[in-house]
Amino acid sequence: MNILADGGVTTPKGFLAGTAYADIKGNNAGKADVALLYSERPCTAAGVFTQNKFSAAPVHWSREIIADAQARAIVVNSGNANAGTGDQGYSDAAQMAALAAEHLGLDRREVLVASTGVIGVPLPMDRMWRGISASKPTAAGSHDFAVAIMTTDTVPKLGAVSVQLPDGTVGHIGGTCKGVGMIHPDMATMLGFLTTDFAVERQFLQQALKAAADRSFNMVTVDGDTSTNDTLLILANGACGNPPISEESDAATTFQNALDELCVYLCKKIARDGEGATKLIEVEVRGAATLQDARLAARTIASSPLVKTAVYGNDPNWGRLLAAAGRSGADLDPNKVDAFIGDICLMRAGQPQAYDHALAVATMKQELVQLKLHLHLGEAFAIGWGCDLTEEYVHINADYTT
Amino acid sequence: MNILADGGVTTPKGFLAGTAYADIKGNNAGKADVALLYSERPCTAAGVFTQNKFSAAPVHWSREIIADAQARAIVVNSGNANAGTGDQGYSDAAQMAALAAEHLGLDRREVLVASTGVIGVPLPMDRMWRGISASKPTAAGSHDFAVAIMTTDTVPKLGAVSVQLPDGTVGHIGGTCKGVGMIHPDMATMLGFLTTDFAVERQFLQQALKAAADRSFNMVTVDGDTSTNDTLLILANGACGNPPISEESDAATTFQNALDELCVYLCKKIARDGEGATKLIEVEVRGAATLQDARLAARTIASSPLVKTAVYGNDPNWGRLLAAAGRSGADLDPNKVDAFIGDICLMRAGQPQAYDHALAVATMKQELVQLKLHLHLGEAFAIGWGCDLTEEYVHINADYTT
Repeated sequence: MNILADGGVTTPKGFLAGTAYADIKGNNAGKADVALLYSERPCTAAGVFTQNKFSAAPVHWSREIIADAQARAIVVNSGNANAGTGDQGYSDAAQMAALAAEHLGLDRREVLVASTGVIGVPLPMDRMWRGISASKPTAAGSHDFAVAIMTTDTVPKLGAVSVQLPDGTVGHIGGTCKGVGMIHPDMATMLGFLTTDFAVERQFLQQALKAAADRSFNMVTVDGDTSTNDTLLILANGACGNPPISEESDAATTFQNALDELCVYLCKKIARDGEGATKLIEVEVRGAATLQDARLAARTIASSPLVKTAVYGNDPNWGRLLAAAGRSGADLDPNKVDAFIGDICLMRAGQPQAYDHALAVATMKQELVQLKLHLHLGEAFAIGWGCDLTEEYVHINADYTT
Repeated sequence: MNILADGGVTTPKGFLAGTAYADIKGNNAGKADVALLYSERPCTAAGVFTQNKFSAAPVHWSREIIADAQARAIVVNSGNANAGTGDQGYSDAAQMAALAAEHLGLDRREVLVASTGVIGVPLPMDRMWRGISASKPTAAGSHDFAVAIMTTDTVPKLGAVSVQLPDGTVGHIGGTCKGVGMIHPDMATMLGFLTTDFAVERQFLQQALKAAADRSFNMVTVDGDTSTNDTLLILANGACGNPPISEESDAATTFQNALDELCVYLCKKIARDGEGATKLIEVEVRGAATLQDARLAARTIASSPLVKTAVYGNDPNWGRLLAAAGRSGADLDPNKVDAFIGDICLMRAGQPQAYDHALAVATMKQELVQLKLHLHLGEAFAIGWGCDLTEEYVHINADYTT
């Protein structure tokens, strides 16, 4: 399996994407901000969504569609989250689905909806309609789709994997995502869209998506703030003609591994492009008593403002690493812990080690900074991703709506 | 009851404080960094400590002393946390107590120890001894004590209250604290020291201190990072000659209220002086189903990087307030929530309200920014305190050890 860096949501057969500029935010940004994804064939669909209790209107809509129907299209806008918009918000989300359905010749209950941007401002539905009707989905639309869903992202995030199933069928999984702030997903990330031309049985598709999200998007953090709009969707259109993959299929593991690989690839792009970030932080926690402990410790370290500023300052201040692990809630015994920056051991079995300070600083100046803990309590293992905290994060967020 | 802003740990009768400069950090800072607090009479003592699993050596020592003995003195150093220092750390903390005991003519098991500063560097015990032996406790030492325990604090934090018990006895509670980063206390704050000349029965003293901490220090957050060294101690020396206050005493409520008032006064000084902060954020959550929910929501809002940057930018981005409440874990119904900035209503029963944007911006330009939520689910109420997040926070923390 290899990542196709120039692949995306239209790499799998039978998927088309189109975008338009509708000035959804009303600030004449000029960048495309409405995006349509369309499958030429009916799909099974699965999704994971934010756990934030203020989940946005499009999340409510898409949860319903995922729960009780097939889907064939996704309509997305950037610039406005349609969150905190009360009853009007739900009605606008349903209307977005209806407008996209009308444009594509579908039923509105085949259309999933996602929105991202400012919270608390009603959607401009007139401009939305102009954007949707101007979108012309094509098989070459991956890159434009990835651009249209961006907000403060500085780079589009897309990729695909080519997969051969045990029976010889060759197909693809493609994906794209956005999000660089309010990132601390609690089921999925801000917005992520995946497609595959394999046939996949619905229940297994949901289970595989959740498992992949738990290993990827749910282990990314930029600022510890869980969004109201987190949504990760997958459409499987069966264009490959394979027998639908289910949990019992020989192909299940192959499919899961490919999905995991693509999701990890995409989620690292989120952390690397975190608001104001100059570095990707990768936190490895080994030897935890439980998977939950390993995940808790990795996420807490990756989200600690003090760890993040130390990484920005190339400061091997490993005390902050331990302090974050210690408050994470993960079970640990201070007298057993080993700690590393890259391959440099800073603490062994709870005792500080002499280390080459200049080498540690040089290691931290890399664009990828690896922080590792071994808890020596069990076999569980997790990796989390984050980014450094810089003055630029403050600049970006001190003046977002105004 | 009125706060005596120029009072401190030596305002209650029979308490003396002294400090010295020992260059504990080894950077020729020149500021006093060793502090001694001494009671002329035996005291009952109580303490609450960090829940961080990497709790520091002095925390281990002081927990033991609080558990099994009376105390008469506290020795404190700034510049070095004596945390992450392995077995050597515990032996150094015990040695600090022994050196202070020798200097003051006490048994070492009457001496509590607290340290704050860099994690992972052994204490310089030779300089520690010179500092302790140079400290000359006096009844005028409150202010110097508050200065000596500071690290990145920009102002000393101290105060006292004068209290008349129902039987007519007049006495005092004095206190001081430090800490402006790694502030998200999980039992107490970085370091806080309280004294009183009332006689207080030990069990009630512990219970009253825990209750006061839960309403004050445990509701302050600067950056969400719980310190390894959080310690809040109180010594009650009985110099007033009152019958020891117990839970059943008429004086119990009077004492608790005074202690609460002083702790809230001190903890707001921490938030206001948060690293890089320009404003104090006060988050009020009313109408929660449980006290735990109210506290969770208030703390989560006060610690959200997106709320903090919005306050810095005078941006009435109330969506971030709701998003933080929604991820806090507190029970809430989005369709019941009212939200306010100061007295300006931005959302009522989950529906966005029209509001005067210019007035909201002006309200956020005040040095105290009040954010209020009413959940309309019950009667529980909590207040949390935090500060804005600025470029200066990043500057301070990107280059702390080096």
